[in-house]
Amino acid sequence: MCPIIQPRILRGFRDYTPEVMAPRERMVATVCEVFRKFGFQPLATPCLEYADILLGKYGDDAEMLLYRFTDNGGRDVCLRYDLTVPLARVVAQYQDLPKPFKRYQVAPVWRAEKPGRGRFREFVQCDVDIVGTDSLAADAECVQVDDAVMTALGVADFEIRLNNRKVLSGLAALAGRTEDNAMHGILRTIDKLDKQGPQNVRSLLVCENGLTEERAGRIMDFIGITGDNEERLSRAAELLSDSERAQQGLSELRSVLELAQAGGVPPDRLRVDLSIARGLDYYTGTVFETILKDLPQVGSVMSGGRYDDLISTFTGRDMPAVGISVGLDRLLAALQELGKVDAAAAAADVFVTVFDEGGRADATALAARLRDAGLSVQVSYTSGKLGKQFKQADRLGARVAVVRGPDERANDSATVKDLGTGNQKTLPLDDVAPAIEDILKKAPQ
Amino acid sequence: MCPIIQPRILRGFRDYTPEVMAPRERMVATVCEVFRKFGFQPLATPCLEYADILLGKYGDDAEMLLYRFTDNGGRDVCLRYDLTVPLARVVAQYQDLPKPFKRYQVAPVWRAEKPGRGRFREFVQCDVDIVGTDSLAADAECVQVDDAVMTALGVADFEIRLNNRKVLSGLAALAGRTEDNAMHGILRTIDKLDKQGPQNVRSLLVCENGLTEERAGRIMDFIGITGDNEERLSRAAELLSDSERAQQGLSELRSVLELAQAGGVPPDRLRVDLSIARGLDYYTGTVFETILKDLPQVGSVMSGGRYDDLISTFTGRDMPAVGISVGLDRLLAALQELGKVDAAAAAADVFVTVFDEGGRADATALAARLRDAGLSVQVSYTSGKLGKQFKQADRLGARVAVVRGPDERANDSATVKDLGTGNQKTLPLDDVAPAIEDILKKAPQ
Repeated sequence: MCPIIQPRILRGFRDYTPEVMAPRERMVATVCEVFRKFGFQPLATPCLEYADILLGKYGDDAEMLLYRFTDNGGRDVCLRYDLTVPLARVVAQYQDLPKPFKRYQVAPVWRAEKPGRGRFREFVQCDVDIVGTDSLAADAECVQVDDAVMTALGVADFEIRLNNRKVLSGLAALAGRTEDNAMHGILRTIDKLDKQGPQNVRSLLVCENGLTEERAGRIMDFIGITGDNEERLSRAAELLSDSERAQQGLSELRSVLELAQAGGVPPDRLRVDLSIARGLDYYTGTVFETILKDLPQVGSVMSGGRYDDLISTFTGRDMPAVGISVGLDRLLAALQELGKVDAAAAAADVFVTVFDEGGRADATALAARLRDAGLSVQVSYTSGKLGKQFKQADRLGARVAVVRGPDERANDSATVKDLGTGNQKTLPLDDVAPAIEDILKKAPQ
Repeated sequence: MCPIIQPRILRGFRDYTPEVMAPRERMVATVCEVFRKFGFQPLATPCLEYADILLGKYGDDAEMLLYRFTDNGGRDVCLRYDLTVPLARVVAQYQDLPKPFKRYQVAPVWRAEKPGRGRFREFVQCDVDIVGTDSLAADAECVQVDDAVMTALGVADFEIRLNNRKVLSGLAALAGRTEDNAMHGILRTIDKLDKQGPQNVRSLLVCENGLTEERAGRIMDFIGITGDNEERLSRAAELLSDSERAQQGLSELRSVLELAQAGGVPPDRLRVDLSIARGLDYYTGTVFETILKDLPQVGSVMSGGRYDDLISTFTGRDMPAVGISVGLDRLLAALQELGKVDAAAAAADVFVTVFDEGGRADATALAARLRDAGLSVQVSYTSGKLGKQFKQADRLGARVAVVRGPDERANDSATVKDLGTGNQKTLPLDDVAPAIEDILKKAPQ
């Protein structure tokens, strides 16, 4: 009907074929189950928003990355850049949503970034947020959710690094710079510590943020504070003794630590880290990130914080909020590297062969019966040569093949073949499902 | 930071707040579980595609509805219009995907339609497709999946109406029109039978499709064939005896019926309906739709068919395919009307009150303990007046409230309150989770 089109995908975009998508889907299911256990509820919002809903929220650099266009009706629209601003819109728009509103959302977002290793123009965000309370219990709950998610995914060796933006604003005094813009610039520089190292950050503070060498040095001293959590908190309190706001931040940090521990987060997973800023302009209090101890180089796999001023952009009323974002792709890649991902094929476990087309109805009935017994089953679309069908079964990821040829049909039986070991036996029909279950219980070859 | 923006959503788009999203999410989970049982595997593709990938596939009218724009890099791109053409691209692009390739995908698509009752510019499609086999076993499997999905969702009283495009092409002879375009026009007119009734369809065949009254009458006779499936197939075979293609279609239809029944679909749910055309140009063989007998007016809730020529647009090679699309929103709305949707609140079942801030750590620990027992639990962010907290618990959809005041703390107990009945009792801590489970087992008030 038309000329052949070269099949291709846009740069910076990805197809998730089944071998990637299946473990990813299982991971999302696990994560959402944890969210629900904490009383979070699902929300979905459109991928497209009016441009003015998104503009002015992310900072100028981010705004350049919006997918923005004029729709058929002449509206100025954008693909969403994150899930947080749409959440803010929803909370402002539906004022009768019960508060605190605890929601989760797993959905794609778009950023026209320069594509690179691990950086894509479309990616899935996986967020929980608690809107409408300034209780630090909500901040601590986010930390508990972080811990519970990692635990549910089978990870034990990780660290949740916490800080508070109010503490960082005490840095303003150290830096001699209190204007919002200058402060945000300094925080963004500090945020590069992990990737760039202390030497570079110090240089950036001088060259890019315009600090004197002496003030840059004091900031480096501050973000380099070491010791256990208690020592860090005390030392910071000393260094920032003249900032009331910083003292409040330190006190908040202490409360969040205590409550998270009361909620069962092991103390050795909680680490006060005064260098953590998180890039986004909108955080106002608690900020945290999550590092895999065996793979610290991948960066934070789950991060979040409190952003008490964002939603009021829409409402004009106070609407405090705190949330977490799970870095799904990064986390999945890391878990794969750590061998924590169930690599089980997504395909059906059982492949029912078709001896000849005359036996197809019979094979179809047997497959239906095995599905009723709870198994995942597919039936060969071809018939004839069994060896070829076994190979096909294997290629499709099945672990067991079932044969129902003329002999088996004559005496109400079927042959069950373990595709891993090659072993096979012929059994009465009633015994087929249990025999398959026994094979599937064994680890895959 | 910026002026207050009116929070609003684009026309034709929707937010799914939790009371809608939670049952929808459960429904999707149920549906996908059925898909996996049949050996379908998940696939995800980008929401944006190069425009030329989508153009020329849907017909001119549909093409007008594409969200098409130029991205920041000057590329001509579109938001996807369905999940089928991107699937075709994937199959063409990754030639080493094992075939037959059976995938499911649940994802949003965009069409700039005039919004109306039940018609939206963004909606979620939920598709399964089997690519790479022309076996009618695959068509029958789609019918089985249809039946299994409805059954898993608790629906018993439905009908799967089947036809075959090859049979319809026999109509070309009756109509005296064999050009593709004229034929597609006639099929689209026939497709309106349910909504417009036979009188209007007859008129349209004359006025819009340019048939003589006599030929329009013969077509109406054909699509009005009644009787049981066997009678319909026989009568159609007579009326179309001079069309070899129609005979082949009838034979295919018969095979699909037989195999679907072998696969366990009750015969009374399968109905040959020679009026079914399905609108899309790309179907080539089996077509089917699903009608709720108690709500026929909502139209088809699940439909599909064989489209053997679409993928070759990309490959130039033969790549037969057959699939189903679940009309999620329509089906959910219908199930709600039929009372088949579990309306259970999505929120946490259990609400742990906080007597005073001094008791917050203790309440947090208790909540963690109850979650470990498998319950979904949230903790109050406020403390003090219990009456107010109970009301809050109720508003948030909790069914049980737990109190741990000074008395309870003094003797290692907690008070469990059934928010439905108002009954409460004080129990040792170890007995709290089982007592809550007992309450949750009862139907909600």
